[in-house]
Amino acid sequence: MTELEFVEPAKIEARSFEILTQELPHPIDERYAPIIKRVIHTTADFDYADTLYFSENVLPQALDALRAGATIVTDTQMAYSGINKPALRRHGCEARCFISDPDVAAAAKAAGITRSAAAMDKASQLGGRLIFAIGNAPTALIRLRELLDARSLQPSLIIGVPVGFVNVVASKEQIIASGAPCIVARGRKGGSSVAAAICNALLYLLGREES
Amino acid sequence: MTELEFVEPAKIEARSFEILTQELPHPIDERYAPIIKRVIHTTADFDYADTLYFSENVLPQALDALRAGATIVTDTQMAYSGINKPALRRHGCEARCFISDPDVAAAAKAAGITRSAAAMDKASQLGGRLIFAIGNAPTALIRLRELLDARSLQPSLIIGVPVGFVNVVASKEQIIASGAPCIVARGRKGGSSVAAAICNALLYLLGREES
Repeated sequence: MTELEFVEPAKIEARSFEILTQELPHPIDERYAPIIKRVIHTTADFDYADTLYFSENVLPQALDALRAGATIVTDTQMAYSGINKPALRRHGCEARCFISDPDVAAAAKAAGITRSAAAMDKASQLGGRLIFAIGNAPTALIRLRELLDARSLQPSLIIGVPVGFVNVVASKEQIIASGAPCIVARGRKGGSSVAAAICNALLYLLGREES
Repeated sequence: MTELEFVEPAKIEARSFEILTQELPHPIDERYAPIIKRVIHTTADFDYADTLYFSENVLPQALDALRAGATIVTDTQMAYSGINKPALRRHGCEARCFISDPDVAAAAKAAGITRSAAAMDKASQLGGRLIFAIGNAPTALIRLRELLDARSLQPSLIIGVPVGFVNVVASKEQIIASGAPCIVARGRKGGSSVAAAICNALLYLLGREES
């Protein structure tokens, strides 16, 4: 049986990053290393060293939005829960999730669409800078693409990391092809924890430049 | 680009299970298929067809506990968020997460342990049937093993699926070796969404036998 290693509570995360950095399958883009590594930290899955796509210039755009007090819209309560709220508040940002709202359920039922898609419609009405963190629902991404095409949305960032088997790959490729600022986990993998990890990595990057 | 497939909202999950069942790398144990498949559904990761460990007779024990109105204790708010609350209420069960409680933070600081470990101490004081769903913190699992060894805990089920690089593999093996009823994702992978998915799979199994 593998032996336990004694690591002080406050040093567990640093030790994790040390191990995963040593085990990276190949060198990764230094600009995106804090994001790629945090996703691997969250998943223990080195596939993300290859699958994460970053649109051109996405990082300055995303950090600008956070500096301006962006709203992060998630598709699930799980992704919402995983975002570091103290870090969010420190930068004057907030997170929202509309999936459980009664008006969203009603709109979805009336239109024969998923609640995730209807939640994107509601979010598109928000003012200010918007970051979408989609870890579960390809139908949310597909709706975002429709809103982009209709010029009803100018997001500062779309984090497109749904997981699964139905329209997941295609919905992510549609976001990449849209030309919108995005970070996407190509392929079937992703999830709410990946979406939250990317949000947190961005918040920590902001923290770093201020300290 | 992969084409979008039209699937009615209500049929997306069934279609996902159909695809992943076709793509399973090998036949899986029928008794545990609903759990294994739901974890693969949540992660798009077929590794779980090989890494999920089920202790002998674990399913009847877990379902008995849920029938008796068990409390599910999670190590993170994310895992808590991912558990299907209507399904939980339907069976008279509840979910709790103590990680953000001020008394847990204070106890952790005083003892030089993680908040996750201190949260397990608090949970061990609860009455009734207990199911632990640990998707993040190996230190929570290590604490559960200590409580088991001290005979301070008789859980109905431990879901041991933390993810990561420090003591993750060893802590899971310690739970398996304890002989406690458990479902464990051997290796480094797991996560809050995996923990929640296993809880939900158990709740749906219960729903199925009642319908």
